[in-house]
Amino acid sequence: MKVSIERSALLKAMSRAQSVVERRNTIPILANVLIEAEGNSLSFRATDLDIEVVDKTDAMVEVAGATTVSAHMLHDIVRKLPDGSTVQLSEDMAAGRIEIRAGRSNFSLATLPREDFPIMASAEYDCNFGAKAALLRRLFDKAKFAISTEETRYYLNGIYLHSATASGGQMLRAVATDGHRLACIDADLPDGADSIPGVIVPRKTVTELLKLLSDDDADIAVSVSETKIRFATPDITLTSKVIDGSFPDYTRVIPQSNVKRLEVDAAEFAQAVDRVSTVSSERSRAVKLALDEDRLVLSVNAPDSGAADEELAVAYGDERLEIGFNAKYLLEIASQVDRENAVFMFNSSGDPTLMREGNDESAVYVVMPMRV
Amino acid sequence: MKVSIERSALLKAMSRAQSVVERRNTIPILANVLIEAEGNSLSFRATDLDIEVVDKTDAMVEVAGATTVSAHMLHDIVRKLPDGSTVQLSEDMAAGRIEIRAGRSNFSLATLPREDFPIMASAEYDCNFGAKAALLRRLFDKAKFAISTEETRYYLNGIYLHSATASGGQMLRAVATDGHRLACIDADLPDGADSIPGVIVPRKTVTELLKLLSDDDADIAVSVSETKIRFATPDITLTSKVIDGSFPDYTRVIPQSNVKRLEVDAAEFAQAVDRVSTVSSERSRAVKLALDEDRLVLSVNAPDSGAADEELAVAYGDERLEIGFNAKYLLEIASQVDRENAVFMFNSSGDPTLMREGNDESAVYVVMPMRV
Repeated sequence: MKVSIERSALLKAMSRAQSVVERRNTIPILANVLIEAEGNSLSFRATDLDIEVVDKTDAMVEVAGATTVSAHMLHDIVRKLPDGSTVQLSEDMAAGRIEIRAGRSNFSLATLPREDFPIMASAEYDCNFGAKAALLRRLFDKAKFAISTEETRYYLNGIYLHSATASGGQMLRAVATDGHRLACIDADLPDGADSIPGVIVPRKTVTELLKLLSDDDADIAVSVSETKIRFATPDITLTSKVIDGSFPDYTRVIPQSNVKRLEVDAAEFAQAVDRVSTVSSERSRAVKLALDEDRLVLSVNAPDSGAADEELAVAYGDERLEIGFNAKYLLEIASQVDRENAVFMFNSSGDPTLMREGNDESAVYVVMPMRV
Repeated sequence: MKVSIERSALLKAMSRAQSVVERRNTIPILANVLIEAEGNSLSFRATDLDIEVVDKTDAMVEVAGATTVSAHMLHDIVRKLPDGSTVQLSEDMAAGRIEIRAGRSNFSLATLPREDFPIMASAEYDCNFGAKAALLRRLFDKAKFAISTEETRYYLNGIYLHSATASGGQMLRAVATDGHRLACIDADLPDGADSIPGVIVPRKTVTELLKLLSDDDADIAVSVSETKIRFATPDITLTSKVIDGSFPDYTRVIPQSNVKRLEVDAAEFAQAVDRVSTVSSERSRAVKLALDEDRLVLSVNAPDSGAADEELAVAYGDERLEIGFNAKYLLEIASQVDRENAVFMFNSSGDPTLMREGNDESAVYVVMPMRV
């Protein structure tokens, strides 16, 4: 292999590939990236055995070939090279090394044979469709805060992507929950996505995927099978196993008959929750919401350290209500609201509470109350 | 106590005081700040028993008084209050609480009696002088990277401030070393500083002091005794115990007869060291410098992972020399150079190397070589 490539193109391709490589690996080859040079393109393939990223970029290929080298080390080297420099990669097969040259810098890195690199088995995908990056980003970005981190409930460690019937018709839906709160985000069903099998996309895949969705207008080709999901642009392909488990029936958690309606400026609400919760140093800080005729009083009482309350002018016309929530959950939910007011729908102080962004029906959040 | 104060003035005063308060305290009162209201000023006093900061600010004092309250909690509350708001502090002595009001936010924090707050004993200072903030910042800022972190060598855990005779006459000098490298920084001796006893200023004091020295032209009143050092502006007083130990005779570590002179662009040098050291994942990465007639080749050889070299055009007219250094030490020393070239003076590959910033005689760095 012998290749020349501009440093910034190399850095971009390497950044995306190395990001799936774990910092610590018990299997040495998993610390490496597989570099393949052919035609006029260079591809970088990285995997943690659950996720695989392949990133292609144009390059001057003098001699085709393939080898593997430490992903983080190569990435660090390229990052530290001066902007604008041309980088030459050439394999020295006899020495088991790859030479990297740029300006007056020379590097020689140990390689491992390409044959040892685990390539993710290709799958038969039952469902293929195209979607704008912005649509996918909204689905995953708005749901991800509710993903559970409890490893014993592994089937909650991801976002459940499936199709569902809502009032607007058949939707593409992303749901996440950790048992304390739930996010349920809908988007128009893309053409060809009606046969999508319900899959649970793991947290790390969500994180890596969101990095690829920076360009709103990019068209992403999505392929889904019972065991895998794949997202592809012309340059990058991200393939991931999905979580082998069944996502619980979340629909019965979403309250349908909550009628006590509170409308509040989301940013003001979040700031007030943040302020009053300062007086408590406990991990699960309870904030009490007391509602009475267009008046909301937020309060925290931490007997050891102090107390705090703050009043907000809100829109509320129902009977008096007192209800408590974990401050962190309230803050996270309020921060999902982009432009609109936050609309809370309560039933009683013991029942799950629903939140929407204004009149937007396509995003629903549920949060469980706590006793105060 | 009953006081009104603008939020930004309160935040500024509290920020500087709370910064010495440790996050974890076994003695509860040390988590608190002592607030004293008298005349038309409010003062905040915080301590960790080794360092004490007193910060004064103007305020509308309705009722004079004093109490103590959690420093971090009060700071967090003030930080989260909207900019421009007026904050009212009022003590409720019967309840053992302090009330904080701003807009529609109310906080009530537990207090501890002012009598329990440890006030640092005032000392007789043998030496009092004034110095510009810029002069003090340069002394401490340039020396601090070399402070030892080895707790067993407690007498190296700070910066040795004293007066010394240099070619330019009597100087105020700051020295730090960890046995592997040394920084020796001189400044013109301020009037009245000739009787300064040599004191070792602890690392934490250096860190806190540097935060107070942001305004170059501020006049700092410095007072020094055998056991304490104090830095004061009209608003803030920082008093610190000094380390009870004797600083070793550092002068015999500074080589006087190194004659092999290398001059190199400090930024280029640092970037090249950073790049070549990437190939080694070990903690103490050795970089080899090979010098030969205006040519410097930096190289790293890590048998497991790879090798790297880079050539730099330099000014060097002496005989061939190969010498190795810890990459981290070289980087830290090179980053001390502000504008000038870095000038290295070598003797042999086994002897300490000296570095200066251009022809500046007032800052000297020494670094021990390592075998490569």
